Amino acid sequence: MFIPAIEGQGTEEQKRKWLPMAYKMQIIGCYAQTELGHGSNVQGLETTATFDPETDEFVIHSPTLTSSKWWPGGLGKASTHAVVYARLRTNGQDYGVQAFIIQLRSLDDHSPLPGITVGDIGMKFGSGAYNSMDNGFLRFDHVRILRNQMLMRVSQVTREGKYVQSDVPRQLLYGTMVSVRQIIVSESSCALSRAVCIATRYSAVRRQFGSQNGGPETQVINYKTQQSRLFPLLASAYAFRFAGEWLKWLYTDVTKRLKANDFSTLPEVHACTAGLKSITTSATADAIEECRKLCGGHGYLSCSGLPELFAVYIPNCTFEGDNIVLLLQVARILMKTVAQLASGKKPVGTTAYLGRVEHLMQCHCEVRRAEDWLKPSVILEAFEVRAARMSVSCAQTLSGFSNPEDGFADISSDLVEAAVAHCQLIIVSKFIEKLQQEIPGKGVKTQLENLCNVYALSLLHKHLGDFLSTGCISPEQGALANEQLRLLYSLVRPNAVSLVDAFNHTDHYLGSVLGRFDGNVYQKLYDEAWKSPLNDTYVPDGYHEYIRPLLKQQIHTARL
Amino acid sequence: MFIPAIEGQGTEEQKRKWLPMAYKMQIIGCYAQTELGHGSNVQGLETTATFDPETDEFVIHSPTLTSSKWWPGGLGKASTHAVVYARLRTNGQDYGVQAFIIQLRSLDDHSPLPGITVGDIGMKFGSGAYNSMDNGFLRFDHVRILRNQMLMRVSQVTREGKYVQSDVPRQLLYGTMVSVRQIIVSESSCALSRAVCIATRYSAVRRQFGSQNGGPETQVINYKTQQSRLFPLLASAYAFRFAGEWLKWLYTDVTKRLKANDFSTLPEVHACTAGLKSITTSATADAIEECRKLCGGHGYLSCSGLPELFAVYIPNCTFEGDNIVLLLQVARILMKTVAQLASGKKPVGTTAYLGRVEHLMQCHCEVRRAEDWLKPSVILEAFEVRAARMSVSCAQTLSGFSNPEDGFADISSDLVEAAVAHCQLIIVSKFIEKLQQEIPGKGVKTQLENLCNVYALSLLHKHLGDFLSTGCISPEQGALANEQLRLLYSLVRPNAVSLVDAFNHTDHYLGSVLGRFDGNVYQKLYDEAWKSPLNDTYVPDGYHEYIRPLLKQQIHTARL
Repeated sequence: MFIPAIEGQGTEEQKRKWLPMAYKMQIIGCYAQTELGHGSNVQGLETTATFDPETDEFVIHSPTLTSSKWWPGGLGKASTHAVVYARLRTNGQDYGVQAFIIQLRSLDDHSPLPGITVGDIGMKFGSGAYNSMDNGFLRFDHVRILRNQMLMRVSQVTREGKYVQSDVPRQLLYGTMVSVRQIIVSESSCALSRAVCIATRYSAVRRQFGSQNGGPETQVINYKTQQSRLFPLLASAYAFRFAGEWLKWLYTDVTKRLKANDFSTLPEVHACTAGLKSITTSATADAIEECRKLCGGHGYLSCSGLPELFAVYIPNCTFEGDNIVLLLQVARILMKTVAQLASGKKPVGTTAYLGRVEHLMQCHCEVRRAEDWLKPSVILEAFEVRAARMSVSCAQTLSGFSNPEDGFADISSDLVEAAVAHCQLIIVSKFIEKLQQEIPGKGVKTQLENLCNVYALSLLHKHLGDFLSTGCISPEQGALANEQLRLLYSLVRPNAVSLVDAFNHTDHYLGSVLGRFDGNVYQKLYDEAWKSPLNDTYVPDGYHEYIRPLLKQQIHTARL
Repeated sequence: MFIPAIEGQGTEEQKRKWLPMAYKMQIIGCYAQTELGHGSNVQGLETTATFDPETDEFVIHSPTLTSSKWWPGGLGKASTHAVVYARLRTNGQDYGVQAFIIQLRSLDDHSPLPGITVGDIGMKFGSGAYNSMDNGFLRFDHVRILRNQMLMRVSQVTREGKYVQSDVPRQLLYGTMVSVRQIIVSESSCALSRAVCIATRYSAVRRQFGSQNGGPETQVINYKTQQSRLFPLLASAYAFRFAGEWLKWLYTDVTKRLKANDFSTLPEVHACTAGLKSITTSATADAIEECRKLCGGHGYLSCSGLPELFAVYIPNCTFEGDNIVLLLQVARILMKTVAQLASGKKPVGTTAYLGRVEHLMQCHCEVRRAEDWLKPSVILEAFEVRAARMSVSCAQTLSGFSNPEDGFADISSDLVEAAVAHCQLIIVSKFIEKLQQEIPGKGVKTQLENLCNVYALSLLHKHLGDFLSTGCISPEQGALANEQLRLLYSLVRPNAVSLVDAFNHTDHYLGSVLGRFDGNVYQKLYDEAWKSPLNDTYVPDGYHEYIRPLLKQQIHTARL
């Protein structure tokens, strides 16, 4: 019944679904969880909701500065209501964090209600981006709400102030989180595809060096240095898309199961969405900036579209679970899975490969020639071996600690790397699975196979230390993978522009002069420059005040 | 005699030096080299300067759209004059790119002179950053200037239109480039130290998770995941500072030599400044964004200072030589050096280690225990072996090509990696050299030694693939390095805040609420939020126009 904000950054689907309901309800709502001092650790929230049995009300209060709600989108100026997360207190006991619907502003004149202090938290990264979203702060001074404003599906407070848990399984609470993270993965592919589309098209337009006999210079997309930076990102955009499609299927599946009270796949779904959210958003954030650099100086212009795309994208690495915190959650599940192997428990889903751990700890990569790296089974096994050995190595180190939590903290960097290896394996395997299906369109499958290989082998090159240190491949096999990668770049090159055209982004949606479909970049850059308000006049504002006195050596009267 | 712009992004030193001269000359000048279609390839510039012997003038012209000058700072609205780079044409021949002083605007009323089209190129990355610099475009329509407006120290055109080269050595032209790049390296340390200072102080203030028995949560700086991301950047800030100091000495030395017509060290100086400019600016740009992420959600607020620091810093990766182009130049020098080894030519300066190539191709790392990695000689040799073997490997591959240029293009990604390995060796070795000197202050040397080891071993971990694939170290030795790195983080932790305080940045200079010296972060974040213009009123502008009709279900009259 709530929309994040009327200016909403929500998906089209969310808007279609919630906007009409919000209209009907005549409210604008937001989701107020994060506090000034509390983000990742939801259980550490400080806002209190103390039940008063005399009046049958909750008293909502912000006891400290750090308990101020901070960041909720649309809160600062627009929202009339909020779902507020606060610590439930009743009968002198703390029952942890619960949710309450609270009206913040008058529906008559929009002024904040008594006891409510609310406002905008100020400017954010970029010249646009989230600056059009009034992320807000919110403080309560003993605000009283009715008991039935607590969301009571899972936990209830009775008229007498007794805390009762319903029989609704608490696991259902994960549903929303899983849903949101799954959407973020799909959207990472979308954001990345925009950046890659801009950089690829412009790299085909831009020429530099290599002019022979007065001919045109070389298109920068023909340089291997450009290809080795750009094509792995192009491949990632496709890889994340297929991972997102699969995750959507997984979410649909788990939703059905949850409705039937089957929670068996929930840990797996939780690990997949958390891990893939983390690695796809981190990779996409870095990739957008890399695409900007690949566009040279002109990428720094706002009209390239890339600065704004970056500024609006990067919060994905922090919100809905900080990316490092999420990887540690994945690592925890991996460690648990490895520990349970001894007891004969068979891992399922994306951790199923750990069930073959004995084989994976011993097997040898059979690559002898560069083209051996084109076999999906070879790639898949290399990634499985790497991931399995890194997890097992962490588990072995952990077993040397008397206190497992101390051990977990001590080697947490290694655990993060093991989680990354696991998540990259998922994406590689889902790309390979996709290619085992029917792919319509003549020659399309071959192109996608090239991209799949580029994705896997460029990861192998980037994380060569992992693959070599686990003895998963030999240095010679690593060199062959690199050789094969160079050949793959040559195969991708002729189709690179088509492969980004296939994303089917309109010029309007791309919002980039450099990424124009027609390639008419220079004329449009020039036209765009003229639109700068600074060019409304030839002589700038302030000339008489600042520049002229300087030039006329009347420095003391200049306002510099 | 020129300053980049009155709003100048120039260093304090530049301003002190040039501003009074500019005042005296009653002009504002800029440096107009880059064109819309030509950046890295200066020899490809299209603007023409055609000598007309009848009038003893040059005719300056922009023959194409891509020949428009584009990017010069201060050009758009402020400059009255520019040093313009254009192709010299005389007697029907093209003599390549030369420099000309050209007046652009009237000194009476600042209007552009006849034949001159000039303006601002529009918005750039960030909400501030280079948006206060009127980067401009400039086109010439057959603008006539006097012959003596050509800068004729190196090349001259006589009254008759004859092109003559002076006996001034052309190598002198490199002087400015070397000087500017050396300054960029020093400034990278400064920018990085600001970001690291903010992230380190805030990581000590911010607490999240780990509360036991109702006590305070854990400072995030105590998490190994935070340390493993932050401390290598802290170490880099120190490493780049010492590299910058050394480069300044090298520049002073080469300047003396150039004055005495000794060009022997110029290639070495050119390689060092190009390579170090590239790797320090790339690392710093990435590090600023990493520091922002290390500050969690609040790092995304403008008042954290990090978004602006990032936006204003990243052009360093592109200007004064694109970072990849520069690394390819370093690689070229490395390949030349390796090729000359056979003829017995002894490499000098920072390539001297290649003179011991036979030893470096065969030697084995002697690390047996983690603490062996603390020996400077062990670290140095590991980095030398890695760099030497990567260069030799590239040289061997190149020798298999019948056309060396084809080979260079084909393996350019590998060459870039070899150049990075070489440049990282320089920084590691200069850090080690610094620590062989007297370091004043009790215990300071120990702290710097820890940082030096963190810098080197974190690079080793990051580029483990290089070290393992060249057989420079074994997987076990790599694991020992990682183990030692974890121990080093524990040693750095208690001094981390002091180590950033030592940069001595004032709160005013840092411009960051999160990086405040007094650590009073939350109160100041709250105070800062109230300064948002959106908080001038409780009910926002536009409420009656947009929000109220929505709430009152008068959607058709709402202007949404």
